[in-house]
Amino acid sequence: MSMRFLHTMVRVKDLAASLRFYVELLGLEEIRRIEDEAGRFSLIFLACPDQHEVSLELTYNWDGDEGLPSDGRHFGHLAYEVDDIAALCQHLQDNGVVINRPPRDGRMAFVRSPDNISIELLQKGGAVAAVEPWASMPSVGHW
Amino acid sequence: MSMRFLHTMVRVKDLAASLRFYVELLGLEEIRRIEDEAGRFSLIFLACPDQHEVSLELTYNWDGDEGLPSDGRHFGHLAYEVDDIAALCQHLQDNGVVINRPPRDGRMAFVRSPDNISIELLQKGGAVAAVEPWASMPSVGHW
Repeated sequence: MSMRFLHTMVRVKDLAASLRFYVELLGLEEIRRIEDEAGRFSLIFLACPDQHEVSLELTYNWDGDEGLPSDGRHFGHLAYEVDDIAALCQHLQDNGVVINRPPRDGRMAFVRSPDNISIELLQKGGAVAAVEPWASMPSVGHW
Repeated sequence: MSMRFLHTMVRVKDLAASLRFYVELLGLEEIRRIEDEAGRFSLIFLACPDQHEVSLELTYNWDGDEGLPSDGRHFGHLAYEVDDIAALCQHLQDNGVVINRPPRDGRMAFVRSPDNISIELLQKGGAVAAVEPWASMPSVGHW
C-alpha cells in the first residue's frame, strides 16, 4: 500500500498574527482556504513556494479555542530548510520575533510561532561560517 | 529566499510502541537514526516509502519525558494519503488500533498514535463507495 504525507495541522488562536508570522515573515504561501460558516472555522493551507505538495494546515476556530495550551513545547516542531539562516533570523528579529536559539553554529535556529509552536530553521547545505550578532548570542527560553 | 519543509517532530514516550504503530502498522520507513549517548536521546526519522524528502521525526528521551501530556488533541494532526482507506483501517483495527473516526464517507478517518497524536487518513483520489463495517460505525472519542 502506498502512502503520501500531505500536511501537518496546528490550531491557531489569532489568525492575523499567524498569517503575519508564517506568510509575511517566514515566506510560506497560502495555497487553499476553506471557510466553514456552519462550523464557524477556517482551514488555511500554507506551503513553501516550490513545494505545494506538502503543507501546514492552520485551523482557526472563529469563536476561540480555549483548549489550546499557552506553551506548545509538547508539539515537537516544524522544520524548514532555508537559503540563508543568518539573513532570515535578522528579518525575523527586525520584525519582533524572538530568536530563541540563535544560529551560533551557522546551521540551526529555533523560533516560536504566535501560538508557541516551535519552528526549526536549518541552513541549506549544512553549516556556514557563523556571523554576528548570532555567533555570540545566548539562547533564550526554550523551544 | 527559498525554503523547503523537512519534517514534523513529535515526542514519544514508548519507542517500541511508536515504531510498531508508525512502521509496522502504518507502513512508514525508518530513513535515519541518531543515538545520542551523552544527551541520552534518540532521533528516529520516518518517511513514506516514495517520499523520503519529508519526514516524521520521533524524539525519544531514554530517561522518560514527564512533560508530555496524556492527550495530544492540541497537537493538531499529521495527514497521510492512502491507497485504500477501508483496507488500512481494517489492518489497524485488527492490530488493536481504535478507529476514532471510521471512514463512513469513504474518504476520511482518524486514529491516534500511542502518544495520542491525531493521525488523519485520506483516501487517494477522493471518496470511494463506503463499505462495512465502516459505513455504519459511529465515531468514538475525539481526535
